[in-house]
Amino acid sequence: MATVSPTLLVVSAHAGDFVWRAGGAIASATARGERAVVVCVSYGERGESAKAWREGKGLEEIKAIRRDEAERAAAALGAETRFLDAGDYPLIGTRELLDQLVRVYREVVPTVVLTHTLHDPYNEDHPEAARLALRARVLAQAIGYDAPGEPLGAPPVYLFEPHQPEQCDFKPEVLLDITDAFDAKRRAMEQMGAQQHMWDYYTDLATRRGVQLKRNAGPNLGLPTETKAEAFMRYYPQVTDRLE
Amino acid sequence: MATVSPTLLVVSAHAGDFVWRAGGAIASATARGERAVVVCVSYGERGESAKAWREGKGLEEIKAIRRDEAERAAAALGAETRFLDAGDYPLIGTRELLDQLVRVYREVVPTVVLTHTLHDPYNEDHPEAARLALRARVLAQAIGYDAPGEPLGAPPVYLFEPHQPEQCDFKPEVLLDITDAFDAKRRAMEQMGAQQHMWDYYTDLATRRGVQLKRNAGPNLGLPTETKAEAFMRYYPQVTDRLE
Amino acid sequence: MATVSPTLLVVSAHAGDFVWRAGGAIASATARGERAVVVCVSYGERGESAKAWREGKGLEEIKAIRRDEAERAAAALGAETRFLDAGDYPLIGTRELLDQLVRVYREVVPTVVLTHTLHDPYNEDHPEAARLALRARVLAQAIGYDAPGEPLGAPPVYLFEPHQPEQCDFKPEVLLDITDAFDAKRRAMEQMGAQQHMWDYYTDLATRRGVQLKRNAGPNLGLPTETKAEAFMRYYPQVTDRLE
Amino acid sequence: MATVSPTLLVVSAHAGDFVWRAGGAIASATARGERAVVVCVSYGERGESAKAWREGKGLEEIKAIRRDEAERAAAALGAETRFLDAGDYPLIGTRELLDQLVRVYREVVPTVVLTHTLHDPYNEDHPEAARLALRARVLAQAIGYDAPGEPLGAPPVYLFEPHQPEQCDFKPEVLLDITDAFDAKRRAMEQMGAQQHMWDYYTDLATRRGVQLKRNAGPNLGLPTETKAEAFMRYYPQVTDRLE
Amino acid sequence: MATVSPTLLVVSAHAGDFVWRAGGAIASATARGERAVVVCVSYGERGESAKAWREGKGLEEIKAIRRDEAERAAAALGAETRFLDAGDYPLIGTRELLDQLVRVYREVVPTVVLTHTLHDPYNEDHPEAARLALRARVLAQAIGYDAPGEPLGAPPVYLFEPHQPEQCDFKPEVLLDITDAFDAKRRAMEQMGAQQHMWDYYTDLATRRGVQLKRNAGPNLGLPTETKAEAFMRYYPQVTDRLE
Amino acid sequence: MATVSPTLLVVSAHAGDFVWRAGGAIASATARGERAVVVCVSYGERGESAKAWREGKGLEEIKAIRRDEAERAAAALGAETRFLDAGDYPLIGTRELLDQLVRVYREVVPTVVLTHTLHDPYNEDHPEAARLALRARVLAQAIGYDAPGEPLGAPPVYLFEPHQPEQCDFKPEVLLDITDAFDAKRRAMEQMGAQQHMWDYYTDLATRRGVQLKRNAGPNLGLPTETKAEAFMRYYPQVTDRLE
Repeated sequence: MATVSPTLLVVSAHAGDFVWRAGGAIASATARGERAVVVCVSYGERGESAKAWREGKGLEEIKAIRRDEAERAAAALGAETRFLDAGDYPLIGTRELLDQLVRVYREVVPTVVLTHTLHDPYNEDHPEAARLALRARVLAQAIGYDAPGEPLGAPPVYLFEPHQPEQCDFKPEVLLDITDAFDAKRRAMEQMGAQQHMWDYYTDLATRRGVQLKRNAGPNLGLPTETKAEAFMRYYPQVTDRLE
Repeated sequence: MATVSPTLLVVSAHAGDFVWRAGGAIASATARGERAVVVCVSYGERGESAKAWREGKGLEEIKAIRRDEAERAAAALGAETRFLDAGDYPLIGTRELLDQLVRVYREVVPTVVLTHTLHDPYNEDHPEAARLALRARVLAQAIGYDAPGEPLGAPPVYLFEPHQPEQCDFKPEVLLDITDAFDAKRRAMEQMGAQQHMWDYYTDLATRRGVQLKRNAGPNLGLPTETKAEAFMRYYPQVTDRLE
Repeated sequence: MATVSPTLLVVSAHAGDFVWRAGGAIASATARGERAVVVCVSYGERGESAKAWREGKGLEEIKAIRRDEAERAAAALGAETRFLDAGDYPLIGTRELLDQLVRVYREVVPTVVLTHTLHDPYNEDHPEAARLALRARVLAQAIGYDAPGEPLGAPPVYLFEPHQPEQCDFKPEVLLDITDAFDAKRRAMEQMGAQQHMWDYYTDLATRRGVQLKRNAGPNLGLPTETKAEAFMRYYPQVTDRLE
Repeated sequence: MATVSPTLLVVSAHAGDFVWRAGGAIASATARGERAVVVCVSYGERGESAKAWREGKGLEEIKAIRRDEAERAAAALGAETRFLDAGDYPLIGTRELLDQLVRVYREVVPTVVLTHTLHDPYNEDHPEAARLALRARVLAQAIGYDAPGEPLGAPPVYLFEPHQPEQCDFKPEVLLDITDAFDAKRRAMEQMGAQQHMWDYYTDLATRRGVQLKRNAGPNLGLPTETKAEAFMRYYPQVTDRLE
Repeated sequence: MATVSPTLLVVSAHAGDFVWRAGGAIASATARGERAVVVCVSYGERGESAKAWREGKGLEEIKAIRRDEAERAAAALGAETRFLDAGDYPLIGTRELLDQLVRVYREVVPTVVLTHTLHDPYNEDHPEAARLALRARVLAQAIGYDAPGEPLGAPPVYLFEPHQPEQCDFKPEVLLDITDAFDAKRRAMEQMGAQQHMWDYYTDLATRRGVQLKRNAGPNLGLPTETKAEAFMRYYPQVTDRLE
Repeated sequence: MATVSPTLLVVSAHAGDFVWRAGGAIASATARGERAVVVCVSYGERGESAKAWREGKGLEEIKAIRRDEAERAAAALGAETRFLDAGDYPLIGTRELLDQLVRVYREVVPTVVLTHTLHDPYNEDHPEAARLALRARVLAQAIGYDAPGEPLGAPPVYLFEPHQPEQCDFKPEVLLDITDAFDAKRRAMEQMGAQQHMWDYYTDLATRRGVQLKRNAGPNLGLPTETKAEAFMRYYPQVTDRLE
């Protein structure tokens, strides 16, 4: 059987989500020479583009702006992009959209998957995208599913941190050290021109998660003061050959 | 600061628990040249020695038998032992016992800790030992705690699988591959002469957890059919520098 | 920005639900001069009209009866009504129904929202209506959502008590004193002619919740013996400027 | 009102599920002279027929094979079958499928219902089938629902054990003694020719659940060593006239 | 091995708890000719005797009053009593108290155990008594525990309904029909002279639980309108040889 | 009955906890002219004074330093202090300590209580103090409890935010606006000389909770950009006479 090369697949409900929530994980993977592919299920054109609407821009114009921002942010992280343009607010998980995602899985052959939490009282689009991502992953594993490519393995799935974590039943289960990747994440965030207040918010969050990482790092001495981290949940058990 | 060498500390309520529940993890660590220390808080002389009581043996005799079995099992796993002889059924977590455990932590300087789950409706001794293990670990971290040795780092804690996992709110979060270590675990189990029916029970469990490990192993191709595993929960978030 | 006047929006799966479960909250609001609007997503014509079916009435006739009862009950509570006639048993949350609800939000501009719990093993129509109510509320907040009116603020949401609360994971988080409003609630209940046994059932429940209210009322001395209450859960955190 | 004769209805997402998960319960019921009806919502033609796909068989051929296996397994258990052929991977719970199931309920008049758990991260078809089974059961109770037959009573619902129970939030709440029925279950399993490794897996599981049954059996002395069991959850409270 | 005759053991934190919460279960068992033994761990002399304290009575006098009431209530239910006089408010679970309870188990040889829930934010004495009851039950099973009598079997444990069920994480898992036993329960309640308001409160609760019982009773046709019930949780899985 | 004047009681495991976690709530209450009393169960001399130990100070000296800091911080917040000097690491909840706390309740007559969460895997002293605070509150309500003063009412209890909220099962249920009180909180924090890095950490947290407060504030227009907040959980249901 052919070797599988490390590939990160990020399923993002809107064009900006992957930047704030997984930018460090993405930059960290690509810095190691791994491939990263971001699927933006929608552009977030209705629900996350308030500034553009207030400025009187039209729907197609807004979608173009959001796409452009996402592409520049992905570039800063070293990632490829796929845009499914499924519409947002509401993002509706149709049978066709599910099939599109299965085909992405079969084509990209991810070894790790990142997506949203399954509960978010502030934005139902996020869980809807997550449900699609999870179901498509299982479908892509079946030889009987009618789509090009080989049946997928069973890549682990990580859920990234939502904006109000506790209200989404989010509990940090994995603290990922993104200290070295943080500059790239900051550059990616800075592509999101309309949301400047978010740059500092997510920088502060990375610092706070970094403090927690150090608190849980055991005898990993010598972590720098300015350690930055991102938090994730696991959707499946960890498989390992050593406890450490 | 001095280098910390990998050391596994297992806190076991009774003399046999560590064999069934963590034998693979222990043998796997010692096979890598790591140190492993098992603390038996009690001998399990009252609660887990029914056969000896039925044969009319006395308390001290039973404790000696249990100690001997535990020592032989630990030897088969390559682990050291400590016996606190705190009494069982009930095992009561006194202030003194807590202090004894803090001193073990300070002396052993574990980099990984294993103990029981915090809920077990079939045996309250198990959670009691786990609470002691967890609290002692935190106390050992404080420079102000009056015991010999240096303040401890913050070693990760894994909770091992109880006999009736679902009734103990146990959910496998980490599946540890113990295929190579399984022979040693089997030999250790076979030191527990009075519980022969358990040998096969825990061999079957290792097989079942192995099936689950393979199901969750993603693109880790080439795992052998007879993969064996042990399941654990994490008590603290995982700290890592890569998602995989 | 214009002042927002206090307005209660109640999203009720069937024509009768709002009476039993939120009649006190509604009457209490209107007694203070606030506006209250009840949306009946369906008439409950199939699932909650057994008596009429047994009497051989036809579908349209039953819908008319239910509508009439609901209008009289709402009048007794001082509330306006909206009927979406979406069908029940099953109530299916379509894209169109969702849009209708968004438009109601934009028109009514609620400052408080009441709806069903998200779990009910006895009647899936209830959670379906709640999901619609919650998602429509978020959509109505987005300037990019294409519907008349201004983007909505973020009104707090309360979930009302289902018929078998514990089976629906309902835990009283807010105990609302409805003592003064109870007469109006009783009159509203009495408009539901076919369900006379429910009048006493919900009167008893109001008494029992009243006992609990007094037990939790702290130093609020002087509550009357016959205190009546309704119980609610919060879907979002409470925002306040004092702990009391 | 006419007497209701004991009838077990099993709603199985795919053609094989009922064998592994409820074969003992079915055989045990039919051995007592009760009726048992298995509804296979799909044949599992895409998601659970990997071997046939690898052998190059076509879709209709695979469905026929699966149907044949299921019929032979049901015969071994003494059960009737219904095939809805709704398609799998993904199994989509449409309005029409829901109606088909309501009609089965009205026709079969079950006194006990068995189906899947509501959470399964390895196979979303299972919860989808369970949601259909649960909703159809409630619809069938309503006199106003337009389908032949009498309104259903409220038969208790049991959820059967999934393949990775802990990941599906499955906790054994009922341990059913299937010792006498196990031979029939084994024969039924042996009809599933392509999944020989499962025969032993589910035999071992029955043994393990049997050990737990004995551990929880209280003063039920004299249970045989080789006691076999199946585990279930309850979806509704148990109704009884004695605690025992 | 000797036959075990059906015996109900009720562990009640205070002298009155068993009446309100398990009176129906007790009367129902004794009406079938079974033995029932109530252990009152304390008299509830400090925490549940406000009226007597306000009347200026002394501690010993209050204990005598409470004991007398409990004895009369138990007599009305056909049950024996044991008083451990451990003190209340706070009830402290000492090693000695635990041993006393083990000895009761060994002497009474219960086939069913009833006690409090493990969480009660209104009265920590209740969970403390429950923890004692549960731990003593396990100790009594061990042949190695030094107390007179034979090792106990593993009697099922039911937790009874607390005063504010939802705040105690109480979910009715078993609805027990106490219609025939209700007269005896009412008589027992009427022995508690100082708490007349509770008589009606618990009569209403029995009615409400009766309504739920009928709603969940499946095809058990012909249950009377005035069905009365008590609700319980199970602490261990149910063991059975048929699903019904 | 005499009028009860608003009084906040804060039960803090160590001398510093109340500053970081409830400083805003305290300053906000005292600014309204209410009384606030802080009980420091221990000085945090062993577990939260690492700097002093590293500087070679002795136990009594460290306790004096901590007491002094706490007194100055409390003064900055306008609160009184009580020091129980119960010892920390481990803080052990004895019968005597419980009684001391009951006496504080009877003396202070709080109308609102603040304390720690009931779960904290990083510091068991916190839950231990919380359990004491909760149990003492209930004991103080009983006329039969032998301590000076009148029986307490049932003041609501709020649990404050721990350092790693998600690991402590902390979910913000109440977001308290502390914008006006924040200067006082900052001054109080600055009394804690040895923990300068915490000043900014908790300032950032107040900003983040402020962002969430605004997100949940509904139509409360005109909240300032720099809104600051503290988060709390409720231990008992809220009692109110209006939903808003």
